[in-house]
Amino acid sequence: MTPLFLRINPADNVAIAIPAEGIGYGMEFEGIAAREFIPQAHKIVTAPIEAGQSVVRYGQTIGIANRDLRLGSRIWEDDVRLPVAPSLDHLPLSTAVPEPLPPLEGFTFQGYRNADGSVGTRNVLAIATTVQCVAPTVDYAVKRLKSEVLPHFPNVDDIVALTHSYGCGVAIDAPGAAIPIRTLRHISLHANAGAWPLVVSLGCEKLQPERLFRSDSTAGAPLPVLESGNVVRLQSEPGFAATVSAIMQAAERRLGQLNCRYREPCPASELVVGLQCGGSDAFSGVTCNPAVGYAADLLVRAGATVLFSEVTEVRDAIHLLTPRAATPAIARDLIREMRWYDEYLARGGADRSANPTPGNKRGGLANVVEKALGSIAKAGSTAIRSVATHGEKASTRGLVFAATPASDFICGAQQLTSMNLHVFTTGEGSPYGLAMVPVIKVSSRTSLAERWPDLIDFDAGIIATGAASVEETGRQLFRLLLDVASGRKTWAQHWGLANALALFNPGPVT
Amino acid sequence: MTPLFLRINPADNVAIAIPAEGIGYGMEFEGIAAREFIPQAHKIVTAPIEAGQSVVRYGQTIGIANRDLRLGSRIWEDDVRLPVAPSLDHLPLSTAVPEPLPPLEGFTFQGYRNADGSVGTRNVLAIATTVQCVAPTVDYAVKRLKSEVLPHFPNVDDIVALTHSYGCGVAIDAPGAAIPIRTLRHISLHANAGAWPLVVSLGCEKLQPERLFRSDSTAGAPLPVLESGNVVRLQSEPGFAATVSAIMQAAERRLGQLNCRYREPCPASELVVGLQCGGSDAFSGVTCNPAVGYAADLLVRAGATVLFSEVTEVRDAIHLLTPRAATPAIARDLIREMRWYDEYLARGGADRSANPTPGNKRGGLANVVEKALGSIAKAGSTAIRSVATHGEKASTRGLVFAATPASDFICGAQQLTSMNLHVFTTGEGSPYGLAMVPVIKVSSRTSLAERWPDLIDFDAGIIATGAASVEETGRQLFRLLLDVASGRKTWAQHWGLANALALFNPGPVT
Repeated sequence: MTPLFLRINPADNVAIAIPAEGIGYGMEFEGIAAREFIPQAHKIVTAPIEAGQSVVRYGQTIGIANRDLRLGSRIWEDDVRLPVAPSLDHLPLSTAVPEPLPPLEGFTFQGYRNADGSVGTRNVLAIATTVQCVAPTVDYAVKRLKSEVLPHFPNVDDIVALTHSYGCGVAIDAPGAAIPIRTLRHISLHANAGAWPLVVSLGCEKLQPERLFRSDSTAGAPLPVLESGNVVRLQSEPGFAATVSAIMQAAERRLGQLNCRYREPCPASELVVGLQCGGSDAFSGVTCNPAVGYAADLLVRAGATVLFSEVTEVRDAIHLLTPRAATPAIARDLIREMRWYDEYLARGGADRSANPTPGNKRGGLANVVEKALGSIAKAGSTAIRSVATHGEKASTRGLVFAATPASDFICGAQQLTSMNLHVFTTGEGSPYGLAMVPVIKVSSRTSLAERWPDLIDFDAGIIATGAASVEETGRQLFRLLLDVASGRKTWAQHWGLANALALFNPGPVT
Repeated sequence: MTPLFLRINPADNVAIAIPAEGIGYGMEFEGIAAREFIPQAHKIVTAPIEAGQSVVRYGQTIGIANRDLRLGSRIWEDDVRLPVAPSLDHLPLSTAVPEPLPPLEGFTFQGYRNADGSVGTRNVLAIATTVQCVAPTVDYAVKRLKSEVLPHFPNVDDIVALTHSYGCGVAIDAPGAAIPIRTLRHISLHANAGAWPLVVSLGCEKLQPERLFRSDSTAGAPLPVLESGNVVRLQSEPGFAATVSAIMQAAERRLGQLNCRYREPCPASELVVGLQCGGSDAFSGVTCNPAVGYAADLLVRAGATVLFSEVTEVRDAIHLLTPRAATPAIARDLIREMRWYDEYLARGGADRSANPTPGNKRGGLANVVEKALGSIAKAGSTAIRSVATHGEKASTRGLVFAATPASDFICGAQQLTSMNLHVFTTGEGSPYGLAMVPVIKVSSRTSLAERWPDLIDFDAGIIATGAASVEETGRQLFRLLLDVASGRKTWAQHWGLANALALFNPGPVT
């Protein structure tokens, strides 16, 4: 018999409706009859819950019942209130560190090796910019370069203008201003651009090239990328046409160098995979995210780096993460990031209830607790090896918590500091893409994959009906990751879909 | 004899160097010999200043001397410290309201009249978006529309995708979140798009179309622009190609309507002119900004609306503005905006010293006080008729203070809520442009206009040498404004330079 609902943990007193058409009134499964229509992904009560008792999913309290909830009834948004968030003061630190899984040997992809040791999955000319003022000029030059110059360099995949809205009109010495600056620096030096961008500056901006490209480690020494001839300053050029010409000449020189790059076999350990979910639903935590989590475990076993992120969407599951930190110091780093964001939200007059979205709710998610419990499934089952703060580059292999906001575009931009491959899971559907790295879009429901056949790269929805296992699906996804890292195009690449870089600036604008 | 330096007010004890090559050691003018080289736009001491005394320019204290400053010496950045900001508690309210200037009759431009009473200066199809997720899809559709469809509608100037980084991943109920939402609403309903955009939504985003387009006045009623057929929701469409097709079909219908618009003579009173400076220097306050101020007076006399903005760049001159407010209530509105921004900066750990930029300093500006005194010259000499808070649409004619950050792009975006024409003054030079309205770029120095002949539309630098008067230059600019409003192209339009919309979101991201 086709299952009507999916219960994750034996302790759960709710389950989610599987069929695309929902569960009709009176339909019965495992001895429970629906008392009302339950739309797909929405919750049905599988054990009576009294007012004030916990609503349990994933074996965890996702909320407190506002009224008695009868067997077989639907959970409505106002039936459940948000529980208090886990306190950050008495969390278990590194108390249940998973044993390392057996190493996976022999998996490779075709990547681009860089002089600095990094490995790229694409071969692009990146044009870094210090300030928004230069964006339209750079866009103009890139348009001409793509039509007139790029065709002469067939080994180069693309030219990417790293334009953004930071760089001036901001309190550049305020607390938090280091975040957008280091994010932009690491993105600009991306492995897929051979770790060497062309740089375009206006001249009078606050974020001078020497401030953007200075070493973190060696007391702010300017980076070699600022060498003469690699930086175009608009205010030093005699007009627009001359500026465009200067950018095009510098770009052509760099394209000549990039055209000599070639793909070669690289071990899977050179992958840095950023994981993100956007437009999640109640299936996300049982289909796509666990499949991604299994693929993450395979990547970690192969020696790769895996980033999971989105502070506000792990906050309510933090008590499940600090025990998994490889050391107490790493657990404390996790707590530091949660506390920073709690305080950041409070300063702005908000709290964690600002998440989720109308679409999350439409997709059956009661609140941010349920969302978080589903979100962390992406992180698989291995030990957390390090924490990178906002905009910092991940420096260890294995599973890394890279602190970012949950905003899809900011999270993507911050993961770009480190990742050379991106996995994006979605329940509601988003035509998401990034210019610098391939984005593999994974659906939580088969109905989405069927509705968007030219956007979704991989369907994990088949897990819901039991037609495929998490493990099997995760293994397939792992193989797809290696293929895409080697040059197989995703749908976002096929259509050229690339969202603008959204930088996280917690400081004020001026 | 060619003047070597320019003193604005008889009370000033400093003046700025006029020649492009600076003032050489020993060169003498008005009996004062330079004790050292003074670069163009930098200050020379014209009366001895003792340590602790005021450095005076524009007849106002721009700073306190840190040491004795000798006649003929150059003022260096660390010679002067920031004075305390004018207190907001005891400002004169409406104590020196300028008498109305004689009305100017008979000035017209060729504009587009809209059904809602607004008047456009361009004829564009605007595609409003609720969330960043849809931006690459809209961009893709617009690219195809421009090449395949727009040529069939010769009366339409352009198709503009109103993409932005707001709409989801934000605390949409936090204090301040109303700012980006109302800004985006008014921009979307811009007069240059016939007050009727096509709307593209994802589906699951926080900023639902019904939230973006609801009436301010009638208890949140949905606006007519949400009518069936005018809103494309990606998650309701079967895939990418189908979405692009839906956008293109809706766009083609709207292009058919826009193609029937034509220019007709409109009184100058229908102009809403936004004034802004970016990359200012020490000349800005004596050349381009006063010329713009004179043009602003002419516009006000002709019955038009003139917006001046940039809270952090009027803050230190607020004591010169509150007396000019037409009523004490308007003066209090001005003070409210200053106080709000003081508190906003303090919350973020910054203050007014976060302005100016390295380029401002290179251009001879000592600090934000000197910058502010130059900035307000744009506002001319008429009474301040109203104050619009961040993102609010200006509702009165005459001179309006429209509160915005000083960031060029945020100021431009917020002025777009109201303006149909934009004047941008610059000393250092910026290739600034906006897609929705013509931008007239005015230089503070002739050397900039000469260096950037294909970017600067109007040179006000000739005022510095006395070769032209402020009044004469202002009158020429006024005529240029009418021409550009009638369809004459600016350099930004010639090259298609349009900066991305930067929305001001003082609330947190999630």
